[in-house]
Amino acid sequence: MIQAIDHLGIAVRSLDEAIPLYEKALGLTCLGREEVASQKVRTAFFDAGGVHLELLEPTAPESPIAKFLAEKGEGVHHVAFRTDDIGAQLKQAADAGVRLIHEKPFEGAAGKLVAFLHPKSTRGVLTELCALKPEAVAH
Amino acid sequence: MIQAIDHLGIAVRSLDEAIPLYEKALGLTCLGREEVASQKVRTAFFDAGGVHLELLEPTAPESPIAKFLAEKGEGVHHVAFRTDDIGAQLKQAADAGVRLIHEKPFEGAAGKLVAFLHPKSTRGVLTELCALKPEAVAH
Repeated sequence: MIQAIDHLGIAVRSLDEAIPLYEKALGLTCLGREEVASQKVRTAFFDAGGVHLELLEPTAPESPIAKFLAEKGEGVHHVAFRTDDIGAQLKQAADAGVRLIHEKPFEGAAGKLVAFLHPKSTRGVLTELCALKPEAVAH
Repeated sequence: MIQAIDHLGIAVRSLDEAIPLYEKALGLTCLGREEVASQKVRTAFFDAGGVHLELLEPTAPESPIAKFLAEKGEGVHHVAFRTDDIGAQLKQAADAGVRLIHEKPFEGAAGKLVAFLHPKSTRGVLTELCALKPEAVAH
């Protein structure tokens, strides 16, 4: 079951230029910055009432974010939904005819399992499913 | 102060084609449909953990959503932040150099005051600020 929107991924050309917008214009607090080498991005996180905003700056021309910026410009790159059972959620999406980018979830940042649905079958919205890893769930 | 993400506006060519995606593939419940004549859109609402997804289908070629679809295709059209003081929030954004589409908030759907920041000064993300109208706030 979808529990919440976990975060929005927002493609930006420069974290240094984008962070002041969210800090000064919107008054949000930057929670931290991180480089994710596997995705060739640098990120900065903000919280807005429990939903994270994840600014994404490419670190190389072959980064998926660099390709997105070249095609569409800066803007919302993906919407991530948190679920309590990512396997069941992926099966539900596939059964409904959605093309999966990842058939099986993989380990993302912050102790989460993640998988993406293809935007060509989600009406242009690159959609991420994410879940806490089973061992991270409190018993 | 920004309290939360209120909703995401998502531009779609057809509600009838997009609603089943959110219902069947993601398992969300459509809370209702509404036509907003002033914006020349038909909308359908879903809830994901307190954040609404607002699907937007144009009803006329001159609808802002029709123009967005022609330029960018289907996808996230705007991000709406809920604030406890929309006047102060607009002033903060303007003071930080953000171009305002609306200098003053106007009455939107569901008893809210709304105003938009221009995406050219919010790094490509059309940003809405919204607040409950003062008389709608419980005392």
